[in-house]
Amino acid sequence: MKCGAQLSLYVMADDFVRVILSSLDAIAPYRDHLRIETDDISTLVVGPPELIFPTMRELFVAAARSGHHVAMHATISRGCPGEPDMDICEPEQPSAFDEDLEKRKRRAARAVTDAPSTGQRVAVQFSLYPLGPADYMDEIYGCIDFLKASPVFDRAKNYCTRLAGDAGPVFEALSQAWLSFGDPNAHVAIDLTASANSPSPDAAA
Amino acid sequence: MKCGAQLSLYVMADDFVRVILSSLDAIAPYRDHLRIETDDISTLVVGPPELIFPTMRELFVAAARSGHHVAMHATISRGCPGEPDMDICEPEQPSAFDEDLEKRKRRAARAVTDAPSTGQRVAVQFSLYPLGPADYMDEIYGCIDFLKASPVFDRAKNYCTRLAGDAGPVFEALSQAWLSFGDPNAHVAIDLTASANSPSPDAAA
Repeated sequence: MKCGAQLSLYVMADDFVRVILSSLDAIAPYRDHLRIETDDISTLVVGPPELIFPTMRELFVAAARSGHHVAMHATISRGCPGEPDMDICEPEQPSAFDEDLEKRKRRAARAVTDAPSTGQRVAVQFSLYPLGPADYMDEIYGCIDFLKASPVFDRAKNYCTRLAGDAGPVFEALSQAWLSFGDPNAHVAIDLTASANSPSPDAAA
Repeated sequence: MKCGAQLSLYVMADDFVRVILSSLDAIAPYRDHLRIETDDISTLVVGPPELIFPTMRELFVAAARSGHHVAMHATISRGCPGEPDMDICEPEQPSAFDEDLEKRKRRAARAVTDAPSTGQRVAVQFSLYPLGPADYMDEIYGCIDFLKASPVFDRAKNYCTRLAGDAGPVFEALSQAWLSFGDPNAHVAIDLTASANSPSPDAAA
């Protein structure tokens, strides 16, 4: 298994370094299960597919609680043929991919409904890219169906889908998109942008 | 043709709104050729494939000249089956995709060598996703070969390739990755992160 993300956290404030460093404390509970490396553009997080989005949620919510306008970008990947295979990436649970698309949509929807709240509102937009199979749009459309029926769906945008709401169900919806759609043994990527405390009007608010 | 990007510009400073708004002046020369719409997460830029990266370069260089640490994320897409087809996206030049991979690599390399400098140093990392064909890794590896031989190649990272140098050749390399690799009639996406003036040490500097 090959699974991980390149994360970048952006804080629109003069004291961005302090906010970023203190937010890193929030992911301490996950560190034993992850390989983490940082350079000047992003932080590499490698680990099991189930922990990728909870790690991002904890980091982003901690930064958002500073009250500053904060944003996060993540390039998330699994199964890339050019990546090394690492034991640390082994899934913690069996994949639900063997189930048909309708069952996976319902299972993903239940997980979002059951997700605990964090008290922090966020907006995200993301794109899911299952690489290789000719029928890749079936998985994308299945994922969009699941999202449209979920309480955190905000709207379709060009090239991505936008979610908004409490960070708990929003990041659970992202995690479900990651875990339930696209063959778990194939190459799948997500391009994600998150935002909180923006001074710009949210058109859907 | 369906072509465009969702751009987000991040300025790590208290006066980020002023810096972003003044940077937008830099893309005025391109506005007649593009459809541009902004919300609280990103700015949609729709237009011909040749203008996508020059527009990003002008916007990002203008923001970087503020001297603040600035970053940009872009989700770039062409040929997505779910997107509307718009005349404004018509390519300005015929695609070089009919040429074999070796010829395309050489043509792309020449364009980077010929790109004018801007005087602004930037670092970027990006991933190219050609969706649909089973042999999609051939185009990705061809693109990586071209980048590795170019003067702006910095290093391979997990899930992406990192470039660094003057914004002129760096954004030209991105544009060539976009224009020369992946079938021009197919669905291709790029996930891009750019950074300038970071206070963190650049491991490769």
